[in-house]
Amino acid sequence: MTKNEEKIHQKEEMKLKVYVDRLSQPSRAILIFLKVNGIEFEEIKMDISKRQHLSPEFKKINPMGQVPAIADGRFNLFESHAILVYLACAFPGVADHWYPADLFRRAKINSVLDWHHSNLRRGAAPYVLNTVLAPVLGLPLNPQAAAEAEKLLSSSLSKIESIWLQGNGKFLVGGLKPSIADLSMVCEIMQLELVDEKDRNRILGPHKRVLQWIEDTKNATRPHFDEVHEVLFRAKTRFQERRLMGASNKTDSSDRAAVRSKM
Amino acid sequence: MTKNEEKIHQKEEMKLKVYVDRLSQPSRAILIFLKVNGIEFEEIKMDISKRQHLSPEFKKINPMGQVPAIADGRFNLFESHAILVYLACAFPGVADHWYPADLFRRAKINSVLDWHHSNLRRGAAPYVLNTVLAPVLGLPLNPQAAAEAEKLLSSSLSKIESIWLQGNGKFLVGGLKPSIADLSMVCEIMQLELVDEKDRNRILGPHKRVLQWIEDTKNATRPHFDEVHEVLFRAKTRFQERRLMGASNKTDSSDRAAVRSKM
Repeated sequence: MTKNEEKIHQKEEMKLKVYVDRLSQPSRAILIFLKVNGIEFEEIKMDISKRQHLSPEFKKINPMGQVPAIADGRFNLFESHAILVYLACAFPGVADHWYPADLFRRAKINSVLDWHHSNLRRGAAPYVLNTVLAPVLGLPLNPQAAAEAEKLLSSSLSKIESIWLQGNGKFLVGGLKPSIADLSMVCEIMQLELVDEKDRNRILGPHKRVLQWIEDTKNATRPHFDEVHEVLFRAKTRFQERRLMGASNKTDSSDRAAVRSKM
Repeated sequence: MTKNEEKIHQKEEMKLKVYVDRLSQPSRAILIFLKVNGIEFEEIKMDISKRQHLSPEFKKINPMGQVPAIADGRFNLFESHAILVYLACAFPGVADHWYPADLFRRAKINSVLDWHHSNLRRGAAPYVLNTVLAPVLGLPLNPQAAAEAEKLLSSSLSKIESIWLQGNGKFLVGGLKPSIADLSMVCEIMQLELVDEKDRNRILGPHKRVLQWIEDTKNATRPHFDEVHEVLFRAKTRFQERRLMGASNKTDSSDRAAVRSKM
């Protein structure tokens, strides 16, 4: 190896490695954040449907066996909110609005991020599972679980509208520009793209302020938002075709991939 | 009002206000943190059994209607992890180990805190509800929900032991002294004090390292840990007496208070 090759090799070794499956919503949030902020990284595609997240190699990066995870030099990290906070703090080029240095604004954003775990996330994921994904996984649909999840999802959307979006700005807790909380929660809601349009409209339709905020977040992060979501839109098309064909009992491996990443 | 009285009045007005019910585990974590760190505050006792957390006055502090919450001057905050992070950063007297300034150590602690939401918390709370609290609330016990919750609780305890406690230190992610994550998770586990001893031993018994860590966290925060948990131990005694009497269908208002705060 020449000296120059060695340098290139070292640089590649040092580059931030990001382990993601683009069909997982927190994976997408991290990819969009990195691209919008011009952070150099290597995307390591993990195929959840092939159980790559459970391999011994990956468990050296994340012993919990979940994506997303990152390796920055010898430092490994998982849990998407913790990763977003780390990236915002570790890379000096990241604009302040993503995770403000101001103690009070930062505290409010931490509060939204914590709230997300026990509310929006616990509504959206089981709702999508029990309305569209279960049959593809070979599981029975559980209408009671779907109804309970929809209740929590709708109440979470109401609270986003009446509490988190009640500031002067377009974004959460009054932000004039998006924070990591906007990105994380909008990516969570995007998984509703997989369900039937009338169900999605019934749930999201009453929340005009939420719909506007989703558009504002997309606009603030384009073209990366759309590019990273392409794989979700392709899965959406497959689900739509499946519904039209009424072929809910058949499946193929690409649908299984879509499914497992939502669990 | 004399000038001196005015000053005292202003000081009282400015003092950190902490809205808690000591029967809620995140409330206890915040109280212990404040006491251990010698932060001056006023404890505003919220009686969840009397639905004080849903009053219009309290909703001005926390529109979600949940304890714990704080008011620091005109700045209000809720979500216990966000509060602990804020307190650790806003009060210069707090020792670094609670929430290290070091980017990498802080990132690891954020990762544990995020993990807590979707794992330990989602196991412990429904387990306690569906083994001891439901009848007191007038709800049927749901053995299937209890079994599922126990599974998640046990798997969370295994992961705490095999992953989070695998460092050189006594505490999570290798800490030599406790962080806010230790305090938050140990307070969560303490709610198992309410269940039957044989159930608690079955669940906690296999995890010797976890048991040692609980003791280490208690020791590092005494006497405040015990003082703040007194009300839980009193509730435990009442539940034990109830079990001995086999009077699982009768209840009194103090048990109802214990119950609602666990939901």
